[in-house]
Parts: sequence; C-alpha cells; structure tokens
Amino acid sequence: MPANWKSLGLALTSASVVMGGQALAEPPVQVFELSISEEQVVAAGETWCAALVGISNTFHTEGAAAAKAKAEAVIDAAYGFQQGPVAFKPTLTFGESTFRNTRQGALDYFVGPDPAFPPGQGFATYKRWTDCTVQEDVIQLFGPVANSMGNVSITDDQGNVTTVDKTWTFWQPKEGVMRIVLHHSSIPFEPPQE
Amino acid sequence: MPANWKSLGLALTSASVVMGGQALAEPPVQVFELSISEEQVVAAGETWCAALVGISNTFHTEGAAAAKAKAEAVIDAAYGFQQGPVAFKPTLTFGESTFRNTRQGALDYFVGPDPAFPPGQGFATYKRWTDCTVQEDVIQLFGPVANSMGNVSITDDQGNVTTVDKTWTFWQPKEGVMRIVLHHSSIPFEPPQE
Amino acid sequence: MPANWKSLGLALTSASVVMGGQALAEPPVQVFELSISEEQVVAAGETWCAALVGISNTFHTEGAAAAKAKAEAVIDAAYGFQQGPVAFKPTLTFGESTFRNTRQGALDYFVGPDPAFPPGQGFATYKRWTDCTVQEDVIQLFGPVANSMGNVSITDDQGNVTTVDKTWTFWQPKEGVMRIVLHHSSIPFEPPQE
Amino acid sequence: MPANWKSLGLALTSASVVMGGQALAEPPVQVFELSISEEQVVAAGETWCAALVGISNTFHTEGAAAAKAKAEAVIDAAYGFQQGPVAFKPTLTFGESTFRNTRQGALDYFVGPDPAFPPGQGFATYKRWTDCTVQEDVIQLFGPVANSMGNVSITDDQGNVTTVDKTWTFWQPKEGVMRIVLHHSSIPFEPPQE
Repeated sequence: MPANWKSLGLALTSASVVMGGQALAEPPVQVFELSISEEQVVAAGETWCAALVGISNTFHTEGAAAAKAKAEAVIDAAYGFQQGPVAFKPTLTFGESTFRNTRQGALDYFVGPDPAFPPGQGFATYKRWTDCTVQEDVIQLFGPVANSMGNVSITDDQGNVTTVDKTWTFWQPKEGVMRIVLHHSSIPFEPPQE
Repeated sequence: MPANWKSLGLALTSASVVMGGQALAEPPVQVFELSISEEQVVAAGETWCAALVGISNTFHTEGAAAAKAKAEAVIDAAYGFQQGPVAFKPTLTFGESTFRNTRQGALDYFVGPDPAFPPGQGFATYKRWTDCTVQEDVIQLFGPVANSMGNVSITDDQGNVTTVDKTWTFWQPKEGVMRIVLHHSSIPFEPPQE
Repeated sequence: MPANWKSLGLALTSASVVMGGQALAEPPVQVFELSISEEQVVAAGETWCAALVGISNTFHTEGAAAAKAKAEAVIDAAYGFQQGPVAFKPTLTFGESTFRNTRQGALDYFVGPDPAFPPGQGFATYKRWTDCTVQEDVIQLFGPVANSMGNVSITDDQGNVTTVDKTWTFWQPKEGVMRIVLHHSSIPFEPPQE
Repeated sequence: MPANWKSLGLALTSASVVMGGQALAEPPVQVFELSISEEQVVAAGETWCAALVGISNTFHTEGAAAAKAKAEAVIDAAYGFQQGPVAFKPTLTFGESTFRNTRQGALDYFVGPDPAFPPGQGFATYKRWTDCTVQEDVIQLFGPVANSMGNVSITDDQGNVTTVDKTWTFWQPKEGVMRIVLHHSSIPFEPPQE
C-alpha cells in the first residue's frame, strides 16, 4: 500500500460517478444447484404412494394396457432410468433378477409379466391397492440428493395392510425434476417362533 | 416374481403388525449440506460493509490497537483463512503483495502497516468511513458455495463516495458458518480522455 | 470501451512489471469438497466385511468385552452416528426396534444383547464368521456422497454362505473421513413354492 | 433380535443360492456430479489464453467477420451465458456497462464495436496478441465448481506484456462441459508516486 493513503482519496472518489444516478435494481440470481427440502422428500413419498394406488386402480378399472401406460408414465416421471441405471431392489424380486436396474425391469415389477423376467403378475396389479402411507424413520438431506428410510404401509381392498421397510435416494438435477435413483424395499424380518 | 401372487397376500399382511398401534412421530432430519440463499449473500455483503465501517470507527475513536483487535475478529469471523488460503485481491494492493492469501496479509490490508508488507496505513483506517453499501450485479448460488459480483460504495466523513468493483465467493461448511473464500476488489477502469 | 484502444497500450503494459522477474510458483490449491471415487466405495464395502469378520473373530478368541470394544471402534470409524442419526435397517431386526438410528442400537445389533433391545446375541458374534464379500449391482457417485447396492455374502466356520441384499450410503465430509450414513440390509425374498 | 440366533443359520444360509454360480461382473457406476480437478482449472486458463490469441490472430489475418464468428464460438464453448447470466467484469469496461452479464455484452467486449455499448474496438482485436499465460495465486475446488485467482499476462506483436489481475469461477454441470460463470479482470493498482 502507498506510504500516503490520504493521497488516494481523490482518485478513489472519482470512481463514484460510476453509480451516480443509477436506480438500484434487483440483481439476477442464478441457481446452479437446487437443494432438496424435507418437505420435498415427504411429498415424494406421498407421490410414490399415490402412483402405486393409481396404477392399481387403473388396472382394475381400465385393464392391463392402460395400467402399463400409466406405469410407464410414473416410472419416467419418478425414477431416474433416463439418466442411467437405478439401484432398485423391489420387495418381491428374487434370484438373478433381484435387482432391477433398468426401466424394463422396473416396468415388469410394477405391471408384469414380461417374458424376460420370472412369471408373475406385477406388484401394483396383483391386488387392488386402495391406500398407501409412508412413515419415515430418518430423512437425510445432501443438497441435490436426499435419503428417506422408513416404512411404507399399503392397504388392499379387503382392508389388509402390508408394511415394508423402504429406502429411497432422490436426486434433483434441476428445478421441477426429482428422481428416485435408489429404491430398496424389503419384507420386515420375522424372528422364528421359539 | 412368483407365479401366483395372490398367495403372497397373507405373508405380506402379517408384517403389518410392525406399525400396529404406533403413533406416527416426526422423523429425525439430518442436513449434510447447507445451501446458501440469496438472502444470505445479500446479508453477507451488508455485514462486510458494517464491519469495515466498524473497524474504521474503532480506529478513530479507540485507536490502533482496538482497531486491530476488531479487524482480527472480523477476519476470523468473515473470511476462511482458518480453513486454508483465501483468494484475496484487495483494491489497493500492488506488486508482489497484490494477492493476500494469508490472514497476516489481510490484516495488514485492513489495519496495517505491518513491516512484512509495503508501508502504508490500512484501508479501513486511513480514512474515517461512515457508510458502505453493496449493489450486486449478479448473485450465483451453487449449494454451499455462492458468488456475488457488483459494486461496493463507501462514504467517508467528508461525504465523498468511493465505488469499487467487487467479487466475493462465500462458502458455508455448516450451519451458522459462512466464510469469504475469494475476494477480488478493483478500482473501476477510467477510459483515457480523448 | 474507449474510442481509441491503441491509447491504452502503454498504460496496460506498464502493469507488466508486476510479474517481472518473478519465478512462477505452484499455486496453493484448496479443496473444499472431496468426491468419493468408485474405488473408495469398493474399498469401503471390503472394509465393512473385514470389520464384521474381525469382530466375530475377536468374540470367539477374546470374549464378549473385547468384541464389544472392537465393535465400538468399528462403529465410530465406519458409521456417522457422531454426526447425527444414521438410517440403519439391519438384516435381522424387527418390530419397534427395526430401525437402529442410534449408536446404542447399532452396537446392540453387532454385539448385543443390550437390555434396551429385544433379547438375542449380536449378529457379529452369534456365529463365527470367517469370510465376507461384496458384489455391487450399482454404484452411484454424488460428489461427497455415494451409494452402493448389491449383495453381501458371509461365510461361517462351517462353510455355510449367507447372502443378503444390501444398500449403503457413504458420506465424506473431509479427507480421510468416510462414514456410512445409511445401511439397509434384508434377507432375499423367497417366493412361495407352488 | 431373536432369543436364539443359532436358529437363524439355516434360513439365512438358504439365501446363498442367490449368488450361486454367478460370475462376478463389474457393477455399473453412475456419476451424478463431476468434480473439477486442479488440472482442469489450469487447462481452462490455458484454453482461455489460446482462445484470446486465436481471436486476435483471426481478426488480423481474416478480418472482423471471421473474428466475430470465432469469438461467438469461443464464448459459447467457454462461458455459461446459455445457462443464465454470467458475472463478468472485463478489464476495460466502465460506467453503466462495466458488468457484461449477457452474451451480447461479452461479444462486444471481445470483438466490438456493438452500437449498444460505448464505442471502441474489442479487446481481442485492437492489438495483435501473440502470447498469453496464466499464473494462478490460489486455486479452489468445490466439486463441480472451482475458482482461480491470479495474473494473466498477454504479449502483443511488439513484445509488450500486459498483466492483469484475474478471477474465474468455473462450473462443470456434466462430463465434457466446463463453463466460466464468473470472470473479474482488473488492471493492477499503481500506487501514486510520492
């Protein structure tokens, strides 16, 4: 710094004309990363539930083709298969097709059968699901990534309630786009009876 | 999936006792990354301004030692020198000490002289600054990192206004901690008179 | 910009003395975020396996107290309970204590019994585990966060192999620190026999 | 956990057939965030320099139209105007058009004149630049965002060297795409002569 700062006063002050007479405007704000909120995680669980019930209802009222179309729309809107492999372990898959990391595998799970996978009707359609709720045990927020672990309870048209242990990872690459990139669902462990 | 999914109904339903009778509790939410908001960026600029005026006021009312102590507190609270080198190009540094990427260099800039740097009184103390305002041109949010570019206008006790071009990068490693990790300030360019 | 830029040549050039004669040095590089690599995810799975076998071996050669001490060290080094609740659904927990989002709950799972939880010996100690391997189905990298989903196969001293479906989320807040913040393990689904 | 864990051995072991006979394959790895490396930052500075010299050379050998076309290609490849406003304070802008947060403003700066801005030839074309080098003072890595602060020295065809103080923020939204989203350049401060 100069030995005599006082001498700088004039030079610096002369720059003040830059702003002279300008009205202060709101600056443009550019958001490069969107953080997922707790509310978004809770809403995403509810959306998943509503989608499952919706696919089931469509199957039982409009048939398999309509249910498949709905399931495709749900998968494309809710899961990240378009971005790459999704880590997906559904509740009732087994053996070599336990993990369904492709869109085709997920579609079979929801509204199968697909000859490429073991026989059996899809999870969303083999019963008529009428209600679905999520109870999170822990929610974790990592910025554009979030985890949810807890129980999902699904009710059928006979009033039977099925509860599973569920983990989801959500990823939000940009505003209005949030995708499930990991989904691990499992039947609660039942200890052997003594 | 099994050939006869109907048979799964009972097994799945038996799991429902897991949730039976439990009151739904709020899940713990763990935040691993805190995104900086536009409001925080604007507030940080105002805080920087208030700190500059505060150091200047302290110098002119309580003397150099008190101003230095205040500057140290400001630097430790507002800049990230404790985490590593800060990219810092103050307005009026020059030559080999243009960039002040250490705490000592920043302290000299605000309340020098320090024999390790060119002679001259610190920027916060060589005049009595009475007002400071920020007008952002662009704010950019990257999650725990944010940029602000615009003008900072500083008024001295004679009413002279100095305006500089300013860039800050803020970093927020955890709640309640936001640090300037980059600071580039420069005198506005003045085109030569024809 | 000025009407006659040629006139700027001299003024600009005079600034060149700033760098004159300076030897170019390596700039300090400050890393604010450490991304987890695929290699780290694979290594973390292997480390988890080695820790499980290590706790089991300690129990069977040195007793319960030594195994508990080892488990505490493993949990503190490998899981993020010190940062907050961990989303943890072990393979064999059930009912109200299915989710073990506290350090105490995790410790009971590995080397229990703890009176606060259902009776039973810990998973790491009730058998003598001699080998453990991980086979990932998908690995996902989100910067300082990463997911791994796949199978973990554990061999006991009789040569029996147990395989489970496993999901881990790892978080790396700084260099040398990587923590499991989510762990979902489940017994593979077995379809009913026709 | 069950009172008698020994009883679980068989049930768990039966799951081992899942993996029986499967060859271990490499898991798909999905990268959701690409961290910028020090090498990329250094290379980006060199690329910026090469682009400046390239535009200048094009102007002096092929004319204004060719230089403008090249500048447009450079701006679209190197800056983030397509994603939103770029925080851009070039070296020699002044007054109300100091900040050039639009593509048009940046283009004028490099290869103007554009009637929308103060008269004057563009920075890349008013002299014939033959060399350009970067000397970083600090590099900062924030994952998909990185800062570089230091000097850029530009040599003209007369051998005159111009050095400026420079700050860049780079953003890398996906593989192969890295953009300047902030650019602050300023003439080094020259202290008044005593």
